[in-house]
Amino acid sequence: MSTTYLTEHKQRFLDELLDLLRIPSVSADSSFKNDVRRAAEFVRDKLTAAGLDNAQLFETAGHPIVYAEKLIDPARPTVLVYGHYDVQPADPYELWHTPPFEPTIRNERIYARGACDDKGQFYMHIKALEMMGATDGLPCNVKVMIEGEEEVGSDHLGTFVAEHRDMLQADVILISDTSIISNETPSLEAGLRGLSYVEVEVTGPNRDLHSGVYGGGVANPINVLAKMIASLHDDQGRITIPGFYDNVIDLSDADRAELAKAPFDLDEYKRDLGINDVMGEAGYSTNERTSIRPTLDANGIWGGYTGEGAKTVLPSKASAKISMRLVPNQTPDEITELFTNHFKAIAPAGVSVVVKPHHGGLPYVTPTDSVEFEAASRAFEEAWGKKPIPTRGGGSIPIVALFERELGIKSILMGFGLDSDALHSPNESYGLFNFYKGIETIPYFYKHYAALKK
Amino acid sequence: MSTTYLTEHKQRFLDELLDLLRIPSVSADSSFKNDVRRAAEFVRDKLTAAGLDNAQLFETAGHPIVYAEKLIDPARPTVLVYGHYDVQPADPYELWHTPPFEPTIRNERIYARGACDDKGQFYMHIKALEMMGATDGLPCNVKVMIEGEEEVGSDHLGTFVAEHRDMLQADVILISDTSIISNETPSLEAGLRGLSYVEVEVTGPNRDLHSGVYGGGVANPINVLAKMIASLHDDQGRITIPGFYDNVIDLSDADRAELAKAPFDLDEYKRDLGINDVMGEAGYSTNERTSIRPTLDANGIWGGYTGEGAKTVLPSKASAKISMRLVPNQTPDEITELFTNHFKAIAPAGVSVVVKPHHGGLPYVTPTDSVEFEAASRAFEEAWGKKPIPTRGGGSIPIVALFERELGIKSILMGFGLDSDALHSPNESYGLFNFYKGIETIPYFYKHYAALKK
Repeated sequence: MSTTYLTEHKQRFLDELLDLLRIPSVSADSSFKNDVRRAAEFVRDKLTAAGLDNAQLFETAGHPIVYAEKLIDPARPTVLVYGHYDVQPADPYELWHTPPFEPTIRNERIYARGACDDKGQFYMHIKALEMMGATDGLPCNVKVMIEGEEEVGSDHLGTFVAEHRDMLQADVILISDTSIISNETPSLEAGLRGLSYVEVEVTGPNRDLHSGVYGGGVANPINVLAKMIASLHDDQGRITIPGFYDNVIDLSDADRAELAKAPFDLDEYKRDLGINDVMGEAGYSTNERTSIRPTLDANGIWGGYTGEGAKTVLPSKASAKISMRLVPNQTPDEITELFTNHFKAIAPAGVSVVVKPHHGGLPYVTPTDSVEFEAASRAFEEAWGKKPIPTRGGGSIPIVALFERELGIKSILMGFGLDSDALHSPNESYGLFNFYKGIETIPYFYKHYAALKK
Repeated sequence: MSTTYLTEHKQRFLDELLDLLRIPSVSADSSFKNDVRRAAEFVRDKLTAAGLDNAQLFETAGHPIVYAEKLIDPARPTVLVYGHYDVQPADPYELWHTPPFEPTIRNERIYARGACDDKGQFYMHIKALEMMGATDGLPCNVKVMIEGEEEVGSDHLGTFVAEHRDMLQADVILISDTSIISNETPSLEAGLRGLSYVEVEVTGPNRDLHSGVYGGGVANPINVLAKMIASLHDDQGRITIPGFYDNVIDLSDADRAELAKAPFDLDEYKRDLGINDVMGEAGYSTNERTSIRPTLDANGIWGGYTGEGAKTVLPSKASAKISMRLVPNQTPDEITELFTNHFKAIAPAGVSVVVKPHHGGLPYVTPTDSVEFEAASRAFEEAWGKKPIPTRGGGSIPIVALFERELGIKSILMGFGLDSDALHSPNESYGLFNFYKGIETIPYFYKHYAALKK
């Protein structure tokens, strides 16, 4: 496969991505609704330009889903490419060195919200398909589905998939929405954590009170919420919700040893994060804590007076957003229910508690001995000159479990990002090397997959 | 003393107060700086109109201080009236039934930020002085000092008082910035709690992180802050900061019995606040918990993603505003230092903690057997037909302790508000009855005080 085409068109490929990154397609915030749609239309048009057929928007109760396909031969295997064109909210804006939706190139990196997650990564596929079509031709049938609600739980993708089973039939799903260990050490994710995400609200008195007049006499929702959140972990860093670990599959020592082979420098890790020590569940390594072990983190908390100066208020309410990362065989429904029952049970007299579930996702494991995984592994080997290390990812792509359930198709997580890309953070970035290397690697997957499926 | 004058001018008195309430003099928020000054000028002009001399603004490094005087006879005792024209921030605005700075009369009550605290209360004095001057004449010399930084700790009043000791010399300080038990049961505050107010910031990783990629591996500042705040109280509701109670003067059983005489209906208290139970330090009644016992309350907390929807971020920072109410003989400096040392000591590895002190205030006790207290008691008795019950207030007026230290003068806390006036809360209000009854009561204080000091 000639990479001359890539060399000749690399500037245009980049310029197109930058155009896409300029569209603030924040799915969580309804004020960006029209921008989300503009992003969908942009993707649809680029799919057509890349030579795919039937590129179109499918409306949902939420944001639209973009779909296109190129069916060359029923005898060939079919690859379904999945990605998402929506992005995380960009706040806090003030921490960005350059505006999140004005992509900037610095030190060979693209800085913008969505640069890596997931615009930069799924756009590699559109350009790889264009490249294959314009050079050696596609070795497989391909279907592309890019959604706009991944960052808010893919709420409407499930219905869409269920209603379009025939259209979406494929042999494998190919997704670039994960990361490699480093540009020197490529890796392939063999598993993902699931997610349970809830919002809690603690209400004490029916109005904000003067902390001098009432302080000490009534439950303070902030103090109560703090105590409740604190009680969710014991002094070993284990989660105290009854039944939380019941369905967790513990890895064998052999599996843990295999994962431990991934290079990891704790000092470098701490230096990168600017922390003097790590923290987590006793008895597990940092890599294990962030991949094969379930966790509970408060993602946001608010209540009372948070403005300038001092206000002696005893607030009526305090709230928090809390997410739990799940591992096989935990399910979001079960964990959300366990959390809700426990959190209400530990609420003291004097307050009332509301727990509102946000989205969830099932954990997932990809068999490393499958044809699909082997094809991806060979693609890396051919493009990078070394075999990728199988890893377990800490993040969640709920859609992967959904695909398996609804379509009975396995997914290959061929991501090209780095953990240091600052996903979901200010100054998210994506390396130019990774963008171009991904476009170079993807066609090799199609080649090896077509060969192995023969 | 004739109250005909009050009857004839009551509508104008009210209209003037409403004009003052329309000025958003929020001292904590610098964006209201000019409004704060407008309020000061309004007060100065009304003092002149009430017949006082030398009404003027004294500039400070912060907001100006309004001063005026009426010196009738060196042989007569001198009363120094203190109040504050600044108000608490009005947010959350959306919870106000009518805009906070568009005063509205409903059910015989004035609804506005500052209606009771303290515009409605100090303005009674200006009108009472006008009334005395226009009828029987002033029985004492009077000095009036209205500041604009009480809600942010009276930072510059201390310097001002120290630099104007002669000008401010007086026999007693009269303050209306507290409440009575009810309109049927007048009371006089014999003591106040002090205040220590700090802002804490917990920093973990040097940037916001993806909770999937890093969750479980590093300290989460929100979870850590929650655990730290939770640990500040034990299961008996006692504060765990080492040395916190060392200087607390425990009241005698006799004193506690005297305070217990104040009528209190726990069911009504809970019903008013919409709570199913109270919460506080074991071994003390609700009244004691909110008056003679020190407390610790989080007044605000924030960190991570607090917007719409779900964001799986592991934030870099989490913050809280925490205040402690103090009782004799605790001092804010000592308690703030104990808190700071303890809070830093309990910070786990993996985070750094910053504690920033805001303002503080000393607790205060007024001798009930003093001529000043007796004069105030008789004033209530004459105007209300019954003796006021001595109480201990939960709030803080740091200036009271400052006056005693700098000028050696005791203060009389002759407040006319109600705990249900929602000070510092949305829909703050002040009863028309209380406004007019206060104007009627104040002149009796001057009469009895002049007589008793003979």
